[in-house]
Amino acid sequence: MRALLLTDHGPQFYDDYPNPGPAPNEALIRVRLAGICSTDLQLVAGYKGGYRGVLGHEFVGEVVAAPGNEQWLGRRVVGELNIGCGVCTLCRQGLGKHCRQRQSLGIIRRDGAFADYLTLPLTNLHVVPDEVTDEEAVFVEPLAAALQICEQVAVAATSRVYVLGDGRLGLLVAQVLALTGCDLTLIGRNPAKLALLQAWHRTLTMVLSTPALMAELGARPADLVVEVTGSPQGFDQASQLVRPGGVLVLKSTFAGPVADFDLSRLVVDEITVVGSRCGPFAPAIRLLRQGLVHVQPMIHARYPVEQGVAALEHAGRKGVLKVLIQL
Amino acid sequence: MRALLLTDHGPQFYDDYPNPGPAPNEALIRVRLAGICSTDLQLVAGYKGGYRGVLGHEFVGEVVAAPGNEQWLGRRVVGELNIGCGVCTLCRQGLGKHCRQRQSLGIIRRDGAFADYLTLPLTNLHVVPDEVTDEEAVFVEPLAAALQICEQVAVAATSRVYVLGDGRLGLLVAQVLALTGCDLTLIGRNPAKLALLQAWHRTLTMVLSTPALMAELGARPADLVVEVTGSPQGFDQASQLVRPGGVLVLKSTFAGPVADFDLSRLVVDEITVVGSRCGPFAPAIRLLRQGLVHVQPMIHARYPVEQGVAALEHAGRKGVLKVLIQL
Repeated sequence: MRALLLTDHGPQFYDDYPNPGPAPNEALIRVRLAGICSTDLQLVAGYKGGYRGVLGHEFVGEVVAAPGNEQWLGRRVVGELNIGCGVCTLCRQGLGKHCRQRQSLGIIRRDGAFADYLTLPLTNLHVVPDEVTDEEAVFVEPLAAALQICEQVAVAATSRVYVLGDGRLGLLVAQVLALTGCDLTLIGRNPAKLALLQAWHRTLTMVLSTPALMAELGARPADLVVEVTGSPQGFDQASQLVRPGGVLVLKSTFAGPVADFDLSRLVVDEITVVGSRCGPFAPAIRLLRQGLVHVQPMIHARYPVEQGVAALEHAGRKGVLKVLIQL
Repeated sequence: MRALLLTDHGPQFYDDYPNPGPAPNEALIRVRLAGICSTDLQLVAGYKGGYRGVLGHEFVGEVVAAPGNEQWLGRRVVGELNIGCGVCTLCRQGLGKHCRQRQSLGIIRRDGAFADYLTLPLTNLHVVPDEVTDEEAVFVEPLAAALQICEQVAVAATSRVYVLGDGRLGLLVAQVLALTGCDLTLIGRNPAKLALLQAWHRTLTMVLSTPALMAELGARPADLVVEVTGSPQGFDQASQLVRPGGVLVLKSTFAGPVADFDLSRLVVDEITVVGSRCGPFAPAIRLLRQGLVHVQPMIHARYPVEQGVAALEHAGRKGVLKVLIQL
C-alpha cells in the first residue's frame, strides 16, 4: 500500500509498504483523509521519542474488514489513537490512554493514518454521522483534545477566559470555550487567523500579543487561562495572566525543559495548573454535526499521500493551519 | 509593650515598643501564646519581601478592647492573618486573602503576634471554645493551612495519597488527610517525627525517604501527592510520585526558582498541580475541639518573648517541630 513513514532518514513515501491485518476485535480501515498535527511535525523534528513507522493519527476512513464483527463493515469512522494494554492498574482505572505499555496510532509503536490502510481496536472507533463531511471528521481528534479542557475544569459561564495561542489547536479551543458563554479573549500573533475566528464568534475578543497588551491583560487577569502556544515561553506568559485562585490549563507539549520558574508564585497565589492532552470523541462529533464548531476554513492545503513529504513541509510553515493528506 | 521585631539588623527584642490601637471594627488583643512558623524563619533569613515590624502570625489571645463591639470583650480568640482592602475585584470575589493591597499579620505591612498586643479586624477573629487549650489553639492557623487542601481538592477515601515532608506542616497535613480514610503514606527524613505520627494513626504508613524507596513508590504512584518539603527539590521528587491524571498539591514556598523542569510531562500525563496556602479556621477549631488532630506533642520548646531571638534560632534547628513564644 501507499504510506508516508518516518524513517531514520526523515519522512519518506513508500508505494509498496505491506498492508496491515486486523487482530481479533480490530478493524481494518481504508483511510479516506488524514490531517497533519503539530505532534507529527515534532516527531519529524526528532523531538519526541524515537518513533519510526507510518505517521498520522487524525483521520477519517471506512471499515473494510472486521472479522467476526461484520456489522462494522462499510461504516465511516474516526478513531481514538491510544491503545492500552487493558490489564494494568491504569487501564483498569479507565486511564488506558495513560497506560505505560500503550501504543498510540502514528506516535508510539503503531503504524498511523498516512497510509491506505490502518488497523484499530473496535473499541477505539466512532461512527461518523452522514451530516459530517470527511473534511470535518478529520478534525474530530484535535477537537476532542480541545474538549478535554471541559472534562478537567468546570468552565463557568461567568468566567473570564484567555486563550494564549492562535495555532490549529488554539482556534479549536477558543471555539469550544466560546460555546460556554464565557467572557473569552484569544491572544494570538496572526491577524488572519484572528479574523477567521472573529467571523464565527462575534462575542469573542481577539487581540494581538504585544508586551503592552500582555501587561494590560495581566492587570485584569483571567479566571482561566489556556496555554496553547506550543512554545517554552508560553507557560511563563500564561502564568502572568491568571488571577489568584485561578486555573492555568497547559495544552502545549514542547521540546526541552522550561527555564527557571518561580513555583512559589503558584503556592502564594494558589494557582492550579492542569496538564491536558487527548479528549472525548463523542462530544466532538456532536458539535460538528450541529455545526457549532467551524473547521473547514482552517484547511489551508490538501496533498495526495505521494506528496506527503511536501505536505509536512507545508504544515510546518509559519501561519499555516490544517494541511490534509488525501488517500 | 514587649515585642520581637524584624529589623534591618535582624530580629530584636524591644520592651518599649508602642502599643497598637484598634481602628473601627477592629479588636485590641492581648496575646497569650504564639507559634513560630517556617514563614517567620524565611522572613528572618531575608527570603521573603522586605518585611520590617513585629513578627508572628500564629497566636491565641484575649480581646481587651473592641470599641463599639463590647460583646467581644474577654473573648479568647485566634485570628486569620490576611486583611484585604475590601473594595478591589479580588476582595469582592471573596478572594481577600489574595488582595494585592492586603496586609498580613507579621508578614506584610502589619505588626504581628510576637508582642503583648496586636490588632485585627473583628471579621478575622474566631472564638476558641473552652475545650481547646492555648497550646492547641496556637496550631489553628497551620492546621487551617493543612485543611485548605480539602477545600481545593476532593480527597476520595479510596485515594492513594503520599505526603512528602515531615516538618511542622507535613505532620498536620498527614493528620488531616488520614481522617478521610484514604490510603496514606508519609515520606519523611526524621524517624522521631514519623514515630510521633505513627503513635496517633495506626493505618498511616511512615517511610524514610531514600532513593531506593522513592523509586519503589514511583512504581506505584499516588492519586494525590502533597509536597510539603520546603525544599526546591521537592517539586521534582513529588512529580515522580503522582500517577497520570493525578493531583500534586504544592504547600511549600521557598527561595528562588526551580531549575529546569520538563513541563511537558504535566501535559502528557495530564497532571494537575495545585498551589495551596492559607485555609479555613472554623473546621480547624472543630477538629481540635473533637480531639481528632494531635498537636501538643509537636511542641518542642517554649520561650518567653524576651528570649524570642533564641526561640527563632531554636525553631530553625534541624528536626525541631513547634517552638512557642509565651507572652
